[in-house]
Amino acid sequence: MKDFNDENFLLQTKTAERLYHEHAAGMPVIDYHCHLDPARVANDHSFDNLARAWLEGDHYKWRAMRANGIDERFCTGDATDREKFDKWAETVPYTMRNPLYHWTHLELKTAFGITTLLGPSTAGEIYDTCSAMLRENPDYSCRGLMLKYRVEVACTTDDPVDSLEHHARCREEGFKVKLLPTWRPDKAMAVESPASFRAYVERLSEVSGVTISHHDDLVAALRVRHDHFAAAGCRLSDHGLEEFHAKKYTARDTRDIFNKVYGGTALDRREIARFKSAMLVELAAMDHEKGWVQQFHYGALRDNNTRVFRLLGPDAGCDSIGEFHTARALSRFLDALDADGKLAKTIIYNLNPSANEMVATMVGNFQQGPTPGKMQFGAGWWFLDQRDGIERQLNALSSLGLLGRFVGMLTDSRSFLSYPRHEYFRRVLCNLLGNDVERGLLPASELPFIGKMVEDICYNNAKSYFNF
Amino acid sequence: MKDFNDENFLLQTKTAERLYHEHAAGMPVIDYHCHLDPARVANDHSFDNLARAWLEGDHYKWRAMRANGIDERFCTGDATDREKFDKWAETVPYTMRNPLYHWTHLELKTAFGITTLLGPSTAGEIYDTCSAMLRENPDYSCRGLMLKYRVEVACTTDDPVDSLEHHARCREEGFKVKLLPTWRPDKAMAVESPASFRAYVERLSEVSGVTISHHDDLVAALRVRHDHFAAAGCRLSDHGLEEFHAKKYTARDTRDIFNKVYGGTALDRREIARFKSAMLVELAAMDHEKGWVQQFHYGALRDNNTRVFRLLGPDAGCDSIGEFHTARALSRFLDALDADGKLAKTIIYNLNPSANEMVATMVGNFQQGPTPGKMQFGAGWWFLDQRDGIERQLNALSSLGLLGRFVGMLTDSRSFLSYPRHEYFRRVLCNLLGNDVERGLLPASELPFIGKMVEDICYNNAKSYFNF
Amino acid sequence: MKDFNDENFLLQTKTAERLYHEHAAGMPVIDYHCHLDPARVANDHSFDNLARAWLEGDHYKWRAMRANGIDERFCTGDATDREKFDKWAETVPYTMRNPLYHWTHLELKTAFGITTLLGPSTAGEIYDTCSAMLRENPDYSCRGLMLKYRVEVACTTDDPVDSLEHHARCREEGFKVKLLPTWRPDKAMAVESPASFRAYVERLSEVSGVTISHHDDLVAALRVRHDHFAAAGCRLSDHGLEEFHAKKYTARDTRDIFNKVYGGTALDRREIARFKSAMLVELAAMDHEKGWVQQFHYGALRDNNTRVFRLLGPDAGCDSIGEFHTARALSRFLDALDADGKLAKTIIYNLNPSANEMVATMVGNFQQGPTPGKMQFGAGWWFLDQRDGIERQLNALSSLGLLGRFVGMLTDSRSFLSYPRHEYFRRVLCNLLGNDVERGLLPASELPFIGKMVEDICYNNAKSYFNF
Repeated sequence: MKDFNDENFLLQTKTAERLYHEHAAGMPVIDYHCHLDPARVANDHSFDNLARAWLEGDHYKWRAMRANGIDERFCTGDATDREKFDKWAETVPYTMRNPLYHWTHLELKTAFGITTLLGPSTAGEIYDTCSAMLRENPDYSCRGLMLKYRVEVACTTDDPVDSLEHHARCREEGFKVKLLPTWRPDKAMAVESPASFRAYVERLSEVSGVTISHHDDLVAALRVRHDHFAAAGCRLSDHGLEEFHAKKYTARDTRDIFNKVYGGTALDRREIARFKSAMLVELAAMDHEKGWVQQFHYGALRDNNTRVFRLLGPDAGCDSIGEFHTARALSRFLDALDADGKLAKTIIYNLNPSANEMVATMVGNFQQGPTPGKMQFGAGWWFLDQRDGIERQLNALSSLGLLGRFVGMLTDSRSFLSYPRHEYFRRVLCNLLGNDVERGLLPASELPFIGKMVEDICYNNAKSYFNF
Repeated sequence: MKDFNDENFLLQTKTAERLYHEHAAGMPVIDYHCHLDPARVANDHSFDNLARAWLEGDHYKWRAMRANGIDERFCTGDATDREKFDKWAETVPYTMRNPLYHWTHLELKTAFGITTLLGPSTAGEIYDTCSAMLRENPDYSCRGLMLKYRVEVACTTDDPVDSLEHHARCREEGFKVKLLPTWRPDKAMAVESPASFRAYVERLSEVSGVTISHHDDLVAALRVRHDHFAAAGCRLSDHGLEEFHAKKYTARDTRDIFNKVYGGTALDRREIARFKSAMLVELAAMDHEKGWVQQFHYGALRDNNTRVFRLLGPDAGCDSIGEFHTARALSRFLDALDADGKLAKTIIYNLNPSANEMVATMVGNFQQGPTPGKMQFGAGWWFLDQRDGIERQLNALSSLGLLGRFVGMLTDSRSFLSYPRHEYFRRVLCNLLGNDVERGLLPASELPFIGKMVEDICYNNAKSYFNF
Repeated sequence: MKDFNDENFLLQTKTAERLYHEHAAGMPVIDYHCHLDPARVANDHSFDNLARAWLEGDHYKWRAMRANGIDERFCTGDATDREKFDKWAETVPYTMRNPLYHWTHLELKTAFGITTLLGPSTAGEIYDTCSAMLRENPDYSCRGLMLKYRVEVACTTDDPVDSLEHHARCREEGFKVKLLPTWRPDKAMAVESPASFRAYVERLSEVSGVTISHHDDLVAALRVRHDHFAAAGCRLSDHGLEEFHAKKYTARDTRDIFNKVYGGTALDRREIARFKSAMLVELAAMDHEKGWVQQFHYGALRDNNTRVFRLLGPDAGCDSIGEFHTARALSRFLDALDADGKLAKTIIYNLNPSANEMVATMVGNFQQGPTPGKMQFGAGWWFLDQRDGIERQLNALSSLGLLGRFVGMLTDSRSFLSYPRHEYFRRVLCNLLGNDVERGLLPASELPFIGKMVEDICYNNAKSYFNF
């Protein structure tokens, strides 16, 4: 009987333990994709209490609480922080076998040194202890937490119109963690709503100093901001898509569609698809010129619950795994860029695990030296960043590609307490490799190479791939 | 080397054994979804022999026999009961690794106390012994078997036009097992064939006493029957769908479509989808008013084999797992009800396991207090009610929702000998949890809570969720 | 800690070891589906060196090398054989957890008796040793290798216009391995390009001696060649499809479509689907008449990379797993044949593992005596012929059909060194069964039956199913 959450947590064999402790545990963290608020890093924000640090904006926890029958008031409403925390603590035992159970106790342990299990009877003590540390101890400020978890690079997610002033301040103040922006131009393609698209284009025009009156101006304005991001150290773009788009279009099409939507007329589905097809190619070309990595997160069905959307807006815990067949469009999109010599390093993240094998093989069609692993099948994303999801991604990648060239894990998180997700991933990775060695599926004589592979996946590969 | 089918069958660890024997084994059975014939319960039918009890109507076994090269005559034809049984016995060894192998031997053991393996050399003795018990021993009548398996509630599947007289008789006679009807109004939406739809509507009119001349009458007639079902103790509806429908429609659309199909004209696909969209909402609203649970079983492709359909009609073992993308329609359907304050407690069952993660996350979008687990990702259904299917459902549910709030297993069976499927499920559940504890993925200190969770999933959750 | 790649490779339990060594290892190989060049068998070709034997035409290895950042020159370009081999050797350690790592070392061990691991430091010695054996030792010629691996039957993949002269020569020369052709009429349905379709039809006319001026002539010409294949011992057809087609069509439709495309006019999508629907039925009927087995491999998305296609043509390692929903068309296609009494023995292979359960249940709808396992869910194909893919196929088949009636593994390979894939499969199969026995999921008392089942799946089932 193994102890819960001890130093060998998730490690089923001696070889797994060795791989983890000797090769994985000591590597710094490169968190190349997250949703931290850069202002909080710049201001070195301190949280008032554990409810604020844990429950504000964490839709994973809200979903669990709602599923546990908790009233919305205690998830996102006007209950006090302490009331909310108590409801969360009441829910935690019911999250057994859900990643929240593991994350919660890993976070308590690695951030606060607490190994007591969270539940109704321990909620008070844990709340008080952690809240005091968060409030009073400088090691528990936002910057403090990033240093505690040995984060070397963290890439936030930023809109082309963002000033990036917070990133600049961190850099200027010599904050040891490289806080870099990520270029996320989703709004520049969001032509579903003419009014908000126009508002966005006007804001972009203002920020870029480019007068935008037709489509080429839009691209020119984005390029100005792309340059600005590059100057701020940006190395990645990111795109959130339902599915890929690779419709045929002419320069004239794009121009006409832009004029129509900018003029306030709703587009039909074909026009929307054509416009997005064009924008994806324009944006991909910029990334390729700069030597950036482009990321595509596809397959979510968002904002399913109108009642909650009206109450809380997007990202409120009412998104889910969608069903999309996008292999052919993905193929055409990547092929058009490749044929044109404009295919940047690329990471594709799927949300429905039934697409794992499609993505793992599709990226293989566009691998090309000299970059090892130029095309990446991205780590288990969102709902899939739990043990089962991580193992399935690693197994599909292993069977259908080269695990040793994988750039590894990210937090994708809004929380400064989420860094143990890297530890979690590393333990799962070492466990798989350790099992393989002990079962004779990999040669024990190659443990030094396998150890090196672990280090690469945890750190080295990302460092060189993203060119940090 | 573990013994086959012994008291620790399917339990790989000591903790799993403890969880099963101390927490699961003793719980009564709530079989909230089955296809038992209520007349047989009312009449307390006794089977002539084991062939009748096992092979009549069991399309799982027919499929296996056909795959084993057995002539149709011995599956569903005019061969004698004994001949059919012998052909089944000949097939059983070839079902190794198929759930039929486990179910067969669990049923022999738990119903008849027989631990001999069924095969050609043991067929005669087993047939004679079991047939004698079935024929002569009152503990082996339909009611006897339900009591033997400690069934507390069994919900049959019934058409709105059914009289429910058999349920009434059981109740009046004081049969200790609560035999309740389930409202299954599929035929009220089956507008694909104008003639049979009209025939059904006429029958409904007769039974309900409502003259049906347009769509509103149809709804009114259904409501009369819905009330009748409620009075008979019904607590659940059930819908068998290929995929969900959530098209926009107006009151006028539905009225026109009803008139058209009732008048004998075939509908096109859009009209069918629109009509079904409307009916689903009407029916869901009734369930919500009554506080019932609504069940949706989707994703089967039925009656694939015309030759067999002509010979035997539906449910002849020629159905299979289909491929449907229905996430968006499902989302819209649930959202429309939720926005309108009419979303009843809901269970969604998928048939293609590649939709597990979609369903598990989709129900999460509509969770709402005060009912814990208001929205349920249903147990492995039909082809998926075997170890692999059950484990995948439990793992997806665990990773993406709250396992502890799950309402658990059902038999979905036509056979009075299928109750060991509950035992089977419980063993698989305890095995997963036991493994997790022994591997340190769950804390051993929490075994009392985990034991309680097992009891909840086996019995308590269903009891309170369905309000039995 | 188990040793890597030793005699008990992949076998985790004593029972698995027993099953493998006593029942699987000794069975001859029936390789009923491969892509070997029959000319090389007829000429008893010898390879100059290990690079030629391994890297020519092996797109699995090219994909791995490209993913490892190797320049195309070393994959398929003008680098020397030795340079290419060195780049492959450099890549091998990075293939850990990919099937290539296992295959490579199994091939080195079973063909050449080499247990050294391949990598940069061992490349030279391994290259020299193996190349000398290939060049000089008659046991390492193409025929020698087939005999070494105890191949009893090998079925190549051949176009209807092929002369089959090489098969004839092998037969006439008394080569002990039965080298049989497989009927693969894909080009007779490839109406996407009018020009190449016409060229193909003209070639077919020439070879068959049938003047082809309308659709019936095409069928007649194919029938002549079908007879020719039958006379040469052919027992199987094979079809490579993206998805199934079962559109309605009339004799007039097919005639008109043939005339249109043969006349040089491009067809629209509906015409293409209709034509393919018709041809599939015509071809299936021929297979049924002859008592052949028809194979359908569906679900690949081919030639995704235009740059590589221009350089190398098809089969260059730029194919991937596609996303198709084809259950309904598959159902209709099989049903039409069944209803007409023309459904031949059939094997369906899917490429996206998320279709495993659909296929496993769909074939079950058309099982019919007296042939046990008339309808087969095919072995893990292409990207899926690795441990994970094989296990998933075997588990889905077991849970949803009859494992004991399975016709087992094939190499699907272009290489004379790929026969260990049979050994690989057998070890995985025995491991699953051995685990089940040791865990009490199958009865240990039935080991003789289980051993027989292993022999059947490895050899006997295929022998009688294909009527070799």
